[in-house]
Amino acid sequence: MKKRLFTPGPTPVPENVMLSMAAPIIHHRNPEFMEILQQVHEDLQYLFRTTQPVVVMTCSGTGGMEASISSLFGPGDKVITVNSGKFGERWGELVRVFTGNCVEEPVAWGTAITPERIVELLREHPDARGVCLTHSETSTGTASDIKALCAAIHEESDALILVDGITAIGAHEFHFDEWGADICITGSQKGLMMPPGLALIAVSERARDIIEGFRHERPQYYLSLKKALRYHADDDTPFTPAVTLIIGLSEALRMIRAEGIENVWARHARLAAACRLGCEALGMRLFSSSPSFAVTPVWLPEGVDWKEFNRILKTGNGITVAAGQDEFAGRIFRISHLGYYDEFDMLSVIGSLEFTLKAMCVPFEIGSGVAAVQRAFLAD
Amino acid sequence: MKKRLFTPGPTPVPENVMLSMAAPIIHHRNPEFMEILQQVHEDLQYLFRTTQPVVVMTCSGTGGMEASISSLFGPGDKVITVNSGKFGERWGELVRVFTGNCVEEPVAWGTAITPERIVELLREHPDARGVCLTHSETSTGTASDIKALCAAIHEESDALILVDGITAIGAHEFHFDEWGADICITGSQKGLMMPPGLALIAVSERARDIIEGFRHERPQYYLSLKKALRYHADDDTPFTPAVTLIIGLSEALRMIRAEGIENVWARHARLAAACRLGCEALGMRLFSSSPSFAVTPVWLPEGVDWKEFNRILKTGNGITVAAGQDEFAGRIFRISHLGYYDEFDMLSVIGSLEFTLKAMCVPFEIGSGVAAVQRAFLAD
Repeated sequence: MKKRLFTPGPTPVPENVMLSMAAPIIHHRNPEFMEILQQVHEDLQYLFRTTQPVVVMTCSGTGGMEASISSLFGPGDKVITVNSGKFGERWGELVRVFTGNCVEEPVAWGTAITPERIVELLREHPDARGVCLTHSETSTGTASDIKALCAAIHEESDALILVDGITAIGAHEFHFDEWGADICITGSQKGLMMPPGLALIAVSERARDIIEGFRHERPQYYLSLKKALRYHADDDTPFTPAVTLIIGLSEALRMIRAEGIENVWARHARLAAACRLGCEALGMRLFSSSPSFAVTPVWLPEGVDWKEFNRILKTGNGITVAAGQDEFAGRIFRISHLGYYDEFDMLSVIGSLEFTLKAMCVPFEIGSGVAAVQRAFLAD
Repeated sequence: MKKRLFTPGPTPVPENVMLSMAAPIIHHRNPEFMEILQQVHEDLQYLFRTTQPVVVMTCSGTGGMEASISSLFGPGDKVITVNSGKFGERWGELVRVFTGNCVEEPVAWGTAITPERIVELLREHPDARGVCLTHSETSTGTASDIKALCAAIHEESDALILVDGITAIGAHEFHFDEWGADICITGSQKGLMMPPGLALIAVSERARDIIEGFRHERPQYYLSLKKALRYHADDDTPFTPAVTLIIGLSEALRMIRAEGIENVWARHARLAAACRLGCEALGMRLFSSSPSFAVTPVWLPEGVDWKEFNRILKTGNGITVAAGQDEFAGRIFRISHLGYYDEFDMLSVIGSLEFTLKAMCVPFEIGSGVAAVQRAFLAD
């Protein structure tokens, strides 16, 4: 049976990217590799819309979040985080470990924080040194308006702005320089269409000044942005990097540049809209009030058992979607369309939902889901 | 031109391992992947000769060293390190960052610390909580007698024993349980014949008790051994792992089991001995008084310019060896035979040295190097 992955990381990897990583290995201090890394550094600036350095670290996206927190803040530094899902929660965990002074704002799952609320928080905590945001909260399939949030923060405060762009970069419009973010992180296995193993971190001039100027030794070594930035200046890395993954990344970034970043963003918006319409046409309710273009969360139909639904999708149709998490486990599921997806992939996944609902005797009009998807594309 | 890599990491990757990583990607919470990870965990126990857990982290070997130090020790804890090269030096840097209390023993490059000296150090510092050793010091191609060092430490003290096995595992005989090590680390791009990106860390029961029992939050998150061990118990990882690299690792470990670990050790000893004899037959002097089986360091012949020597080796012969480091830069070079090498690879590298010496008009008897290699193998 053909297998199709609709999970928000790992996401499908194009065949040419896979094969680029199967070439004979080269040494990381070899000029051949350093040229590749130089091109990757340039292409990452294109991706993040920045003239600032974007460093590559061999770790997961969480490693990149830790590198940012532990490199920018020290014990006692007050940092505001927004907990609207599993990944916003992670910002809070990291701040508590590294500074011990976290102002964590709870936000209902499936909704996004408003610029007005961020301003209120900054007025309550004028001594906040940073604000941690999540562009696309993977656990709830919900996008924040990072442009408006950045503008509101800049108007009110000098706090640093850290953006978890892990499932947003490559899916949602994002302009690191223009919007004035200080840190933005993504992971290789997301919009970059790569296997996991790399974190990519853009660092603003203001953030670099703070990192360089720190008087005290931070309790960090491998995940030090200071070290990573120093080596980045020579298109190098402080520790042996995941050579094959970086070679694959260079191929994936070449594909993104060839398509054009604006076209990549538009494709994600188009696929996400079609996915939502397809689900609704089948009588399913959407979970998020501010849906992400990376992943679409959907309530399971009344009376449908998640385990059975997922079993039929997976073993009967070869389709893997993501489960709900925490209190929404067994109540919602999430369809990812982040990275290497096109229109016909949306037909496949909505088609597989029709097969599954039919097998579970849930009433719906056969073909209505896929027809809604086609209308979304062809009525453009 | 055919290219051949003789560097101590990255090391050559077998074609079947490369191709295993080019298969369509699977999700890390998928039962199919978790079965692979379970097998990897078992095979790593075989490799390290242990019944204790060996965790897989997505980072370089240095990340694994940091995870060990930051998970086992806290501020003020006294730890003894042995600085006999770049990687022993790294232990010291990590201890200073995470505990601020490092007793660093300098040892001349190319020599190994003795058990007697370790005992003296422990007597001078009875409050030492740990001793950090380097089994094969890559920068100097020098092996320590870890078995004797562990025995001496156990006789004298309860200090934890941390072994950097990064270029030793798979090359030198090592018995984690029998010798009583508490931590041993290796990296994927070494004896494991894999691309870089994974650290593998064996953790003793005594070390696990300390990690579990720590009262205070450590300033760590991504590199927490406590987290990694908890997920390891379910053949899982706390953060998205480098899925494709772990799939490749499972194939590489299958090859090691098929050859048999004792045979893998014996092959490395045999290739290293032949390499040394080949170099000496060409009139070159060996650098180390206690040579590693992973990498052979050799003095450049008198009057030979390293840059020109390396240029001819690389562009004229397709051969990449490693340079000397620090004060030995331009004075020694290092030939690696760690991982996926056999007898005929040793003929290639010694043959290429003959080509290069000839091109540089250094006198030697043509064929004497490769003949010495053959005698080493066939006189067995």
